Amino acid sequence: MKLLRIGPAGHEVPAAYVTDETYVDLSDVVGDFNEAFFASGGIERIRDVVEMRTVRGDVHPVRGQRLGPPIARPHQILCIGLNYSDHAAETGQDVPAEPIVFTKSPNTLIGPNDQVRIPRGATKTDWEVELGIVIGRRTSYLDSPEQARDAIAGWVVVNDVSERAFQMERGGQWAKGKSAETFNPAGPWLVTTDEVEDVLALDMWLDVNGVRRQSGSTATMVFDPYTIVHYLSQFFVLEPGDLINTGTPPGVGMGYQPPIWLAPGDVMELGIGGLGRQRQEVIAPR
Amino acid sequence: MKLLRIGPAGHEVPAAYVTDETYVDLSDVVGDFNEAFFASGGIERIRDVVEMRTVRGDVHPVRGQRLGPPIARPHQILCIGLNYSDHAAETGQDVPAEPIVFTKSPNTLIGPNDQVRIPRGATKTDWEVELGIVIGRRTSYLDSPEQARDAIAGWVVVNDVSERAFQMERGGQWAKGKSAETFNPAGPWLVTTDEVEDVLALDMWLDVNGVRRQSGSTATMVFDPYTIVHYLSQFFVLEPGDLINTGTPPGVGMGYQPPIWLAPGDVMELGIGGLGRQRQEVIAPR
Repeated sequence: MKLLRIGPAGHEVPAAYVTDETYVDLSDVVGDFNEAFFASGGIERIRDVVEMRTVRGDVHPVRGQRLGPPIARPHQILCIGLNYSDHAAETGQDVPAEPIVFTKSPNTLIGPNDQVRIPRGATKTDWEVELGIVIGRRTSYLDSPEQARDAIAGWVVVNDVSERAFQMERGGQWAKGKSAETFNPAGPWLVTTDEVEDVLALDMWLDVNGVRRQSGSTATMVFDPYTIVHYLSQFFVLEPGDLINTGTPPGVGMGYQPPIWLAPGDVMELGIGGLGRQRQEVIAPR
Repeated sequence: MKLLRIGPAGHEVPAAYVTDETYVDLSDVVGDFNEAFFASGGIERIRDVVEMRTVRGDVHPVRGQRLGPPIARPHQILCIGLNYSDHAAETGQDVPAEPIVFTKSPNTLIGPNDQVRIPRGATKTDWEVELGIVIGRRTSYLDSPEQARDAIAGWVVVNDVSERAFQMERGGQWAKGKSAETFNPAGPWLVTTDEVEDVLALDMWLDVNGVRRQSGSTATMVFDPYTIVHYLSQFFVLEPGDLINTGTPPGVGMGYQPPIWLAPGDVMELGIGGLGRQRQEVIAPR
């Protein structure tokens, strides 16, 4: 299934994307795609509803409606740094011996086509197309990466927007440059794991103003999603609905010579094969 | 007022500590001390209720009951590193030019007297008595530290438990050593700002097995709470009910020669003048 949340910001209704640009409204059977939904086996619970309504033609057109992020604000957003071997090579850094973990504030989450706002005082705002993992159950101390398969609800395209000056020139930890308002577009949908045959063979791309800036594949990930979830479960208790951004392939603005930074009016378009595409206009600080 | 949450873990009821070891039950007027409560001016709303029930003697004994953390699981926990001048001196480090910010997972929050569990594989688990700030309203881009006064709901004692090996020897960011289950005892209560005359003149202390290990005062903070909230508001959007741990005074286990680390069976007792005290037994990994 492809789960999405549709409607004005803060008033999205849970839905499933079906076919021909239509969706099934699930607001009468599900409160939201949140912690309680995932914890209670919600994905399995809605399968029959989605199928029955699709067959019956009880569907609505997506066109003209805003898409929210496909999950409610999560308990936490964890991120993996420097997780693509070709991106590490590009920046002249060694592949890390174990995953680098940092965080973003949960309230950075926005819809896939919402505007991205440059923070006040920013000088080096950058893009990062990434594969996002949505956690499906409470997860702690997994015994193996193999066990992580059951802990994952699905996959989502994310743009891990970053202000590099805040991240790296303002004293220490990365969270400071990763957590500005609007810095985590996600969607268009949460694709459940059963719909993706090989998550390690997905093309990834990001354009700025129509120019291809990032292109890569999940095939060059250093730590695959199952290894990441197993690893994180040794340090964190992952809650249902938590989001994990798994790192970015080559071609971020910081990697160009000279570097390229986002400015108001720029348009980012990005996507991952089979997981959909996003489009964000960049706007000026508040 | 002194707000607290009382009852079994996951089933705490909101209450106000009044006097003579008694509390007023607020579960019929407040859902929880959560984001919606703070956002809707909940603190002002309950003042009359607390006063009337106290006068009427509609109170219950605290003795024998578990205290939960005095706030519901927050949207985020932000922390300030190296924020006491005497602690910086002790570790031989310069006072930072601007606040060092890191994060803890929100689900680390536990009651003030709950057990603290050492994580699997841990070798350097450490304590940190700290002044916690609870945010009272949505806060972004404050113009001045002075404006931060209106953004703060109250103060709380926290123990920013840390696994130093995970924090500093496992690749990069501190969150990895700050987010294990049970790593953020908070309480006994949230003391509203009107009850603390000078938050920069509070004694702080922490004992391990009856031996004084930390003693200090909020007077030696490098960045005071108002400066911290103003600063954070430039990088993060703070939500009502968010928790900010403001750093620790001298005497953490890492600072001793040789270092002292926590072991199962150890007992931590800690407190801040006017804000109450905590007691945690340390237990073995799951």
